[in-house]
Amino acid sequence: MANPDTILNAKNPTKVGVIGLGSMGYGMAQSLLRAGFETYGFDIDPARIASLAEEGGRAGLTADLNGALDALVIVVVNAQQMNDTLFGAGAVLPALRKGGLVIGCPTVSPDAARQFEDELKSLGYHYLDAPISGGAVKAADGALTVMMSGSAEVINSARPLLDAMAETIFELGDKAGPASAMKVVNQLLAGVHIAAAAEAITFAQTQGIAPALTVDVISKCAGTSWMFENRGPHIVDGDYTPRSAVDIFIKDLSIVADTARNNSSQVPLASTALTQFVAANKMGLGREDDAAVAKVYARAANIKLPGED
Amino acid sequence: MANPDTILNAKNPTKVGVIGLGSMGYGMAQSLLRAGFETYGFDIDPARIASLAEEGGRAGLTADLNGALDALVIVVVNAQQMNDTLFGAGAVLPALRKGGLVIGCPTVSPDAARQFEDELKSLGYHYLDAPISGGAVKAADGALTVMMSGSAEVINSARPLLDAMAETIFELGDKAGPASAMKVVNQLLAGVHIAAAAEAITFAQTQGIAPALTVDVISKCAGTSWMFENRGPHIVDGDYTPRSAVDIFIKDLSIVADTARNNSSQVPLASTALTQFVAANKMGLGREDDAAVAKVYARAANIKLPGED
Repeated sequence: MANPDTILNAKNPTKVGVIGLGSMGYGMAQSLLRAGFETYGFDIDPARIASLAEEGGRAGLTADLNGALDALVIVVVNAQQMNDTLFGAGAVLPALRKGGLVIGCPTVSPDAARQFEDELKSLGYHYLDAPISGGAVKAADGALTVMMSGSAEVINSARPLLDAMAETIFELGDKAGPASAMKVVNQLLAGVHIAAAAEAITFAQTQGIAPALTVDVISKCAGTSWMFENRGPHIVDGDYTPRSAVDIFIKDLSIVADTARNNSSQVPLASTALTQFVAANKMGLGREDDAAVAKVYARAANIKLPGED
Repeated sequence: MANPDTILNAKNPTKVGVIGLGSMGYGMAQSLLRAGFETYGFDIDPARIASLAEEGGRAGLTADLNGALDALVIVVVNAQQMNDTLFGAGAVLPALRKGGLVIGCPTVSPDAARQFEDELKSLGYHYLDAPISGGAVKAADGALTVMMSGSAEVINSARPLLDAMAETIFELGDKAGPASAMKVVNQLLAGVHIAAAAEAITFAQTQGIAPALTVDVISKCAGTSWMFENRGPHIVDGDYTPRSAVDIFIKDLSIVADTARNNSSQVPLASTALTQFVAANKMGLGREDDAAVAKVYARAANIKLPGED
């Protein structure tokens, strides 16, 4: 294996490409710029690339970048997009020099993470399994949480980039897989807890208790969760501006369900929560905030949520 | 209605009977004793009554107590026991003077709470809907959480007793029902979160992640919950000494399911969690700590939890 210097070049400014300048990727590119990395942005939306360029970023990935980059940070939505980005028509992988580092940030199945590691290794690249969480604000502040697993040399090489983007870094193993597994575990709980918050708040309404009172009281009791305290106020305010959308949990809880089926384990709560998010999507709420799953419950119980006429 | 003085006698030491000297009731009786109330204990186990008597409590309810008590604090397990305690053969209600106060602490359905209020009112007594939470240690320290609803005069009268037993008191309405409803909402979430913790920890195991690592990492992430952080360590330690038992959540989630059905609302997560606790009971784990629901998941996935051979 290469020594760390050959993964990221310690002598010259590291050149990094950020693939996917959405709400997370854009903030991560900003954080890399602030830390002094020569940062190239790429997105299907040219306006996002142009915006980053105004902040000092390099304007996208062009043919003459061939092999010029030391690292790629992939911040697309799912495994399919990551696969297309790396290996499909017009893929960005040729911009990465041989021996360079791919940091994979989407939530993918542990199996998919292992496949990315294997395939990139066979092509002469290094891979870090590095799903992220924390939302757009923390991304812009360089304050994300990263769960990472990979070989020691990959982790050592990636650390300066991660330190620029993340406040909390969990090291979960010496190969791809465990980091994605832990992220999926987190999403299992997060998805169940969001749906449970919606279930509890609407159940309380059927008992004559207003959502604001439920959120106030339960936040101080043993029934609380991080998601209850974070998403509950969205329901109280009737504000479904998407901080994270319903469709994200359809994707992530589907990974949970698929992974469980492949391993003959049971995830009845995650599967039940998934059906509620799918029902929200069928109501046309896929792009709304995930707290909009409360509307599935409200419709079933024939009650009005705050903000509904 | 009577004025507060006629509910609890402000001029003389209030005489209180605590009905049910289990892990919660015993500590509550201790707290009342410490606060100077003349406290009578009653339990089906004479040893509990004798133990309280050694600490200064009065020895149980006898025939000559007829009408002598100002208040009864009911700390039995469920609505059926509370009904038997108040209205059944050998009921304790005759020990309460007319116009006295009954404080109902078990987790019961909102409908049951309303029925207790109505029936006691028709017999000339006052009722406070006052479910509790916090566990045995907080009960002994006078540091419980109480959710209460009842008329203003009942609440005012009850407050000295509640102040002796509770650290946190939520006032939720001017009649019986809302307090029990909020407690049931809390139990909905608590039960779902315990089962979700078990589901997540065992799912992670199928992905090669040890329970201790899951608990460490997720406790710092958006997937966490109060119950995850409290019960997760029980699974990590393989310690199923019952702080709260599996069967408690069969009872409480059944109240959720029954209440939802009566109101035509949906509680699919609570219903799913209930099936997992019922499965734990069928495995002979009903009296174990509620975290033992993890064993249902472990058996289904054919994995060993910490502490299992």
